[in-house]
Amino acid sequence: MIVGVPGVGKSTVVEKAKAAVKGSTVQVFGTAMFDEALRLKWVKHRDEMRKLPVEKQKRLQEAAAARISKGTGKVVFIDTHLFIRTPEGFWPGLPLRVIQPMKPTHLLLVEASAKEILARRKHDTTRYRDEITVEEVNDELALARSFLSAASLVSGAPMSFISNHEGKSEAAADQIAALVRGAKV
Amino acid sequence: MIVGVPGVGKSTVVEKAKAAVKGSTVQVFGTAMFDEALRLKWVKHRDEMRKLPVEKQKRLQEAAAARISKGTGKVVFIDTHLFIRTPEGFWPGLPLRVIQPMKPTHLLLVEASAKEILARRKHDTTRYRDEITVEEVNDELALARSFLSAASLVSGAPMSFISNHEGKSEAAADQIAALVRGAKV
Amino acid sequence: MIVGVPGVGKSTVVEKAKAAVKGSTVQVFGTAMFDEALRLKWVKHRDEMRKLPVEKQKRLQEAAAARISKGTGKVVFIDTHLFIRTPEGFWPGLPLRVIQPMKPTHLLLVEASAKEILARRKHDTTRYRDEITVEEVNDELALARSFLSAASLVSGAPMSFISNHEGKSEAAADQIAALVRGAKV
Repeated sequence: MIVGVPGVGKSTVVEKAKAAVKGSTVQVFGTAMFDEALRLKWVKHRDEMRKLPVEKQKRLQEAAAARISKGTGKVVFIDTHLFIRTPEGFWPGLPLRVIQPMKPTHLLLVEASAKEILARRKHDTTRYRDEITVEEVNDELALARSFLSAASLVSGAPMSFISNHEGKSEAAADQIAALVRGAKV
Repeated sequence: MIVGVPGVGKSTVVEKAKAAVKGSTVQVFGTAMFDEALRLKWVKHRDEMRKLPVEKQKRLQEAAAARISKGTGKVVFIDTHLFIRTPEGFWPGLPLRVIQPMKPTHLLLVEASAKEILARRKHDTTRYRDEITVEEVNDELALARSFLSAASLVSGAPMSFISNHEGKSEAAADQIAALVRGAKV
Repeated sequence: MIVGVPGVGKSTVVEKAKAAVKGSTVQVFGTAMFDEALRLKWVKHRDEMRKLPVEKQKRLQEAAAARISKGTGKVVFIDTHLFIRTPEGFWPGLPLRVIQPMKPTHLLLVEASAKEILARRKHDTTRYRDEITVEEVNDELALARSFLSAASLVSGAPMSFISNHEGKSEAAADQIAALVRGAKV
């Protein structure tokens, strides 16, 4: 399970990790939620998901968790969020009831410096609001570690921090490949 | 659910939030525990509660949680503690077995700077011991965020940090009102 | 339950705490796991445990938890790890499924400064890898507090930080004895 705050470069790292580990596949949690929402005819477009009532969003989360945990393949990278900044506060992306049925084997947190993250967010103003400060990004990074520790404790899965510094996504992917290879399953 | 370390000015913020959100009510968790203790004839005065054996305190916590979660009203603010400093260490005020049955919709952590908190505690030496340091208050603030992350993860509720700077409790209450209004229940 | 990062001087503190609290006993979690592994004839030497498949290690953890929680005695100090640094990442030593059946009454985290910890690790290169930095030790200390908060929240047990500064292990043991004596069981 691969997580990271927005702008940390997670998607690139996930793709490179997939290339580095033979036979591995990637599941994007948000896409699994969207597929389920489409099947139930609750939405037509991805953007509509966030406007659904909380109860429906919770059901999508659980359905996505069930769908993904049924998935086969030796190594499945699950690209997801530890928390999502919303008008209601930070939503936990992997609450107890979602993480427990998924039984992750590894929890991987992709990290970068607040400065690097801020630079990436400023670059892409269509996806990120631009009034964010270094201090807020540092808060998010600290929060991510707190959430990851709690996720590790409730799931029993080991956790790792993956440094993804500018121009070093290969190294980050290699670190992930080594962690997966180390698995004594 | 509104929490915050002692001296952060939580009660004032809670009262102003109640005034800002029409039809909302406030439940003080400790008062619900005391009401239960009175009903069971375990204590006569509130101060006696902390002298009860741990097992009895746990039963009061659970009874208060059950009582409050039965409460009606569109918006109920629950004023409680994330943890309590005792001679046995930091007691979790919202352990798993208490938070799960309560199904909170929002977890709100009222925060201020260590300096502001210390000034408020020094002002009220009847309630607070006075030998506390800035470092200890900073530890408590960090601890509060760790506990809140874990509480959010196990309950699935979103969490927010509410800045309550000196003389700005109105702004803090407005922030809470906005978060509650943002709820897509 | 007494935990602490490697090199913090936990074992010394545990032994002194045992001496300070009359009638108390010590259980080393790793030893209980090893006893179980011997009984099942899964290993002959302690070093072989870490080479067991994860599923077997989990069963040993659970068996050790069951064995220890059956233990009698007024005060039982359990010497264990919050997390273990492995090639797969930081393994949680007290995940939800292990901590819940153990029902700890106190969670005690032994702490020291990163500098002191590093000095102790550099002294004993047979047990610790020597390329570790002050920054990494500080990360481990912060992680320990996050894990402890989550452990406290899921178990409902109070938690305390025990300072074990160089040459002050007596004071640390006294602090533990006072916390245990404060227990209103």
